[in-house]
Amino acid sequence: MFKAKIKSETLREVVDVISALVDEAKFNIKGDGISLRAVDPAHVAMLDLVLQKKGFEEYKAKECELGVDIDKLKEVLKLAGPSDIFSIEHDEDKNRLILDVGNITRKMALVDTAGMSDPKVPNLNLPAKLTVETNELKRGLRAAEAVSDHVALIASSESFEMVSEGDTDSVNLKLPKALLKDLDCKENQKSLFSLDYFSTMIKATGSANEVTLYLGTDYPINLEFDIASGNGHVKYLLAPRIESE
Amino acid sequence: MFKAKIKSETLREVVDVISALVDEAKFNIKGDGISLRAVDPAHVAMLDLVLQKKGFEEYKAKECELGVDIDKLKEVLKLAGPSDIFSIEHDEDKNRLILDVGNITRKMALVDTAGMSDPKVPNLNLPAKLTVETNELKRGLRAAEAVSDHVALIASSESFEMVSEGDTDSVNLKLPKALLKDLDCKENQKSLFSLDYFSTMIKATGSANEVTLYLGTDYPINLEFDIASGNGHVKYLLAPRIESE
Amino acid sequence: MFKAKIKSETLREVVDVISALVDEAKFNIKGDGISLRAVDPAHVAMLDLVLQKKGFEEYKAKECELGVDIDKLKEVLKLAGPSDIFSIEHDEDKNRLILDVGNITRKMALVDTAGMSDPKVPNLNLPAKLTVETNELKRGLRAAEAVSDHVALIASSESFEMVSEGDTDSVNLKLPKALLKDLDCKENQKSLFSLDYFSTMIKATGSANEVTLYLGTDYPINLEFDIASGNGHVKYLLAPRIESE
Repeated sequence: MFKAKIKSETLREVVDVISALVDEAKFNIKGDGISLRAVDPAHVAMLDLVLQKKGFEEYKAKECELGVDIDKLKEVLKLAGPSDIFSIEHDEDKNRLILDVGNITRKMALVDTAGMSDPKVPNLNLPAKLTVETNELKRGLRAAEAVSDHVALIASSESFEMVSEGDTDSVNLKLPKALLKDLDCKENQKSLFSLDYFSTMIKATGSANEVTLYLGTDYPINLEFDIASGNGHVKYLLAPRIESE
Repeated sequence: MFKAKIKSETLREVVDVISALVDEAKFNIKGDGISLRAVDPAHVAMLDLVLQKKGFEEYKAKECELGVDIDKLKEVLKLAGPSDIFSIEHDEDKNRLILDVGNITRKMALVDTAGMSDPKVPNLNLPAKLTVETNELKRGLRAAEAVSDHVALIASSESFEMVSEGDTDSVNLKLPKALLKDLDCKENQKSLFSLDYFSTMIKATGSANEVTLYLGTDYPINLEFDIASGNGHVKYLLAPRIESE
Repeated sequence: MFKAKIKSETLREVVDVISALVDEAKFNIKGDGISLRAVDPAHVAMLDLVLQKKGFEEYKAKECELGVDIDKLKEVLKLAGPSDIFSIEHDEDKNRLILDVGNITRKMALVDTAGMSDPKVPNLNLPAKLTVETNELKRGLRAAEAVSDHVALIASSESFEMVSEGDTDSVNLKLPKALLKDLDCKENQKSLFSLDYFSTMIKATGSANEVTLYLGTDYPINLEFDIASGNGHVKYLLAPRIESE
């Protein structure tokens, strides 16, 4: 059983975060909120999303799983302004979602969840932690896309750096400690990532003004931020690319 | 003879209404205003447009017919802001229109009207009549386009409904009597239409805030609205689609 | 040696002017400012650009030549708001430019200038001179593009006209003396130009509100305007098209 009301802007945050990695996803519904884990088709990135009951306007649920076509949710979001409220209900007989916004009702077939696994989030012990403004990252990534398809993320006790090296040109974003909200890094750390994946994740932060990065050396990055005014939390993991010499 | 001045926003309303159905059209010019009838190439929809002399800033005309390439009028409209005034004159010697806006003069060859018939508007006795906000219809149609290519319009004594059924999903816009400007329907009426045609007509209503629908069962719909601040009137007819069982 | 700071909006003016004709260009750097001459690949149009030291926020240079990929400068400009300042420095050891904006550093390989000639600007004695608002020209060119691919520019002692004749339609922009900032023309002059080239040049005037045209009969046009709040100057030359009878 699942019956809830949610602000369209909150639903949009959730949809943006998921659609960065997958087209279909399994929502795990519980009495205290929803959660979702997904791995992208190339098995390079993982998502762990939680949205608490408090992130909804109304919420009534018993444990169940809902397989959702994320593109259909995107369509429905186009019908609503940011302050509109969606009513969502699971029609168990016909295994579909019934969404109401304004005077419109959209009935949406659910996707079979049989083939969708629940990936385990690995327990990484990443030595560096820092919090950075998403706008700085977005601008740096826009610059990097012009010269390369990968990006090195580098943390030291004094700064965070993002470096992209192309054949002839390079881009460097350097944020000294004073421009970071938080920097906890004893030894230098450096890992290389796909620019495309990292950029897609940063764009999916939506209205989040800052993102916390957990970084090691030649290790996956863990990227976390809040959604739904702090009533939801997103964790992305992205595997490193190995530098070819 | 035809010589007139018209606000660019009024000309835009006229052009939008016509271009929903045809690329070329014959304007019937008379002393008291202009009128135009057209049938779309597939013979599914018909337009009956009237713009009175009062809808122009200046107007001087004797009876004549002008065959106009509507795409060329669209081009010319791009040169003007909403409050700019077009001067339009028929150059009979060279059978062309001379349009002036700002410091620009555009001379436009007319189209031969020999092959353009004057379709007769059928006299339909449609039992239901209702007036609805175009914004509600536009939102409902945007939702419907995601699931189907046809739409059922349903009137009862209590409400107006627009229903689109796809293979797995459906969209329903339901407007109770209280949300309608006007509802006159004794028995339930329901007809099915091409979503594409109906949507194109509703988009062509432009600045009209409301549209009046005349509806029967498995019958054409008649859709009417004003243009030019009430100095013009548009009537669209759209043939029904027959529901396959 | 070249080390300078420049407002992003000034750099954008320079880049827009150059990219109208070429993708790569040679900047001639001197102690009192920079200059650049270029001919488009089809040898139809020429550019002569000057930006004085005063057009920069800071400027320190010894004579040198820098071959620049203009598309790369466009990319970098996308990272900056209009009031952002770029720091630009020539790294002579690696023959590249180092551009800083915000916290981003972009290192950009320079292009070999060996094959880039310094075209000589011909000394034309054009009998008509007039100054016209760029907005009028832009609107007229938008109208002309709908009917033709060439445009006749005509000056008389009373007016400036821009005429485009298509197979069936024509467009005419007529600006009487009262609408021109300046008109010095004793005998009528008329030359025909490629609409595409002329339009591209007028669009490249950017924030310049007016442009001065020097015109003859079947002669190239000389088109001049200021950039960088008067601290820079642009001269375009465009060869005429010969009217086929």
